[in-house]
Amino acid sequence: MPKIVTLPGDGIGPEVTAAAVQVLREVAPDLSIEEHAIGGAAYEAHGDPFPQVTRDALGDADAVLLGTVGGPQNSPWNSLPRPLRPESGLLALRKALGCYANLRPVRVQPGLEHLSPLKPELARGVDILIVRELLGGVYFDGDRKIEGDTAYNTMRYTTAEVERVAKMAFWAAEQRKGRVTSVDKANVLEVSELWRRDVQALRDRSYRSIHLNHEYVDSVAMLIVSDPSRYDVIVTENLFGDILSDLAAVIPGSLGLMPSASLGDGAGLFEPIHGSAPDIAGQGVANPAAAIMSAAMLLRHGLGRSDAANQIERAVALALREHPTRDLGGKADTVTFTRAVLEAMGTPAV
Amino acid sequence: MPKIVTLPGDGIGPEVTAAAVQVLREVAPDLSIEEHAIGGAAYEAHGDPFPQVTRDALGDADAVLLGTVGGPQNSPWNSLPRPLRPESGLLALRKALGCYANLRPVRVQPGLEHLSPLKPELARGVDILIVRELLGGVYFDGDRKIEGDTAYNTMRYTTAEVERVAKMAFWAAEQRKGRVTSVDKANVLEVSELWRRDVQALRDRSYRSIHLNHEYVDSVAMLIVSDPSRYDVIVTENLFGDILSDLAAVIPGSLGLMPSASLGDGAGLFEPIHGSAPDIAGQGVANPAAAIMSAAMLLRHGLGRSDAANQIERAVALALREHPTRDLGGKADTVTFTRAVLEAMGTPAV
Ligand SMILES: CC(C)[C@H](C(=O)O)[C@@H](O)C(=O)O
Ligand SMILES: CC(C)[C@H](C(=O)O)[C@@H](O)C(=O)O
Repeated sequence: MPKIVTLPGDGIGPEVTAAAVQVLREVAPDLSIEEHAIGGAAYEAHGDPFPQVTRDALGDADAVLLGTVGGPQNSPWNSLPRPLRPESGLLALRKALGCYANLRPVRVQPGLEHLSPLKPELARGVDILIVRELLGGVYFDGDRKIEGDTAYNTMRYTTAEVERVAKMAFWAAEQRKGRVTSVDKANVLEVSELWRRDVQALRDRSYRSIHLNHEYVDSVAMLIVSDPSRYDVIVTENLFGDILSDLAAVIPGSLGLMPSASLGDGAGLFEPIHGSAPDIAGQGVANPAAAIMSAAMLLRHGLGRSDAANQIERAVALALREHPTRDLGGKADTVTFTRAVLEAMGTPAV
Repeated sequence: MPKIVTLPGDGIGPEVTAAAVQVLREVAPDLSIEEHAIGGAAYEAHGDPFPQVTRDALGDADAVLLGTVGGPQNSPWNSLPRPLRPESGLLALRKALGCYANLRPVRVQPGLEHLSPLKPELARGVDILIVRELLGGVYFDGDRKIEGDTAYNTMRYTTAEVERVAKMAFWAAEQRKGRVTSVDKANVLEVSELWRRDVQALRDRSYRSIHLNHEYVDSVAMLIVSDPSRYDVIVTENLFGDILSDLAAVIPGSLGLMPSASLGDGAGLFEPIHGSAPDIAGQGVANPAAAIMSAAMLLRHGLGRSDAANQIERAVALALREHPTRDLGGKADTVTFTRAVLEAMGTPAV
């Protein structure tokens, strides 16, 4: 019996996670599902944004379904010492699971081009997979401090860190169009020089069928908006990936539609990419589509159950058309939308 | 007699700089204009992308007009030792001039909304000024190396560096809508924590009339595309500014329209933000509008000649409508467009 740990977290996290769990139970009644605390909620309950009890529960988990983490701008959590803030719980979770590759599919659903901030002719057919390195770079290096009126952070990468995430990108590209764009700032940074060298060497050594090119991060920020169809798989380091994956996420028009998977050595971590949206938390109106699609990614990448994943994704696509939520200009609330997904799953696949 | 140094540089740099100089001579016949080498062209001529003769010429310059720097992706320049590459010449130039603030206006010209990759209703009326810190952060810190299979760069900021660029942003906001958004990643980086603290303290101490808020860089990357009208002045550190200013630059629809000014302790540096566009270099088809508008910024910010700057900007707006260049879907080449600007300057202002 596969074990799933759910970490609802803060803001709308609990609402959308509950919806995703309902759907999971429907397609995979055999799962054992165990809920634990993370982020601000965990700090309130245990004085720690990543408490030991949560850490322990992950030990034998097969996959983790995360809600969202973090409070509003003016939350008292934000003035806690850094290790106690909600975000530190998230970073510690990623590290504990060894999830070094964050996969973010950016797909414009046919018929939903009008939701994009881009012109429909640019949004149409966009299908990008962003692979963000998640455990390295300036995020985790211990060499960081504020000393009087000077602050330092260190960006660091090793060949081993670059290669394992590049492998993930090449592997993903093999099941797509076979094109990988590696993004760096090699005209300025030594870290990027290493990154570019190692990604290219790995391609030349072991992935000769992949078409690999290298682009600068500033240029990609432009092109992802002005010509998004040029990209298939994008692979990049942690900080650039944070920026570019959020940027790309606006193309489909609603963050409420975007799931993500973080994979690595052990159990995978699956989460919607939208934030905790404190302004609408607790009102029952959050769009759970991204959380539900994260559950689908969990089934596919975490448990190898592609059929169930496909079934969910088809049902979500249908529900989005028939019962759009408020963020999409529709009227459905969380419960109505979730019910629509469950009903759509009852209909035989076409 | 004010002295202007022009640095045409690489790719289309010489063509567009020549056009801008023609316009400058027309509105300011009293200027002494001296041309010098920078970038790849300077490496070819002097074995150094920022040669001593260029450095010397800047000593008594009142302002510098730069073309573009850098070769194509596969240029042999890119395999030179880092200090000899074209980009190093650009960074050394910024440092030599002490230009710590890069100002990039992003304005959608009325009537040209259709050029934007965004939906016209989102592009309409966008008027953002991005102020990018240009001499600090991960760009210049000496603590950088590749050592075996590990590479390091250091991000560093001091209070003095933060304050001088924040002052520039507050000053600019005072002549605009009085709103400043400071962009950082304070939920992860100590450097950002210092940045946020110091920008806020300066506002509270000396710029109480400014409305200041703080946003995370990943969130700004989203919002600048999905809701660009929310921004007035954006101030941020060097690397985030590199990415965000290029991202914002696509909103008006053509990089060929975007000037920039880099200001600091001494002579200002004025340059179009488009790259060297090696694919069309030497063909006489490059759009010189950005270079000409950079010359206008030079007159305004470098020499205090706002009337002449306004005259140029009006003429460019007119020429863009009547004689659009190829990047805008029109037919005008560099010479035709420049002639149209010169003619439009002859017409009395309305
Ligand atoms: C909350 C923050 C630490 C996090 C990150 O920067 O990784 C978030 O922006 C994300 O992308 O998941
Ligand atoms: C060429 C490069 C060093 C430069 C930078 O990153 O500053 C460029 O991208 C720019 O924005 O002017």
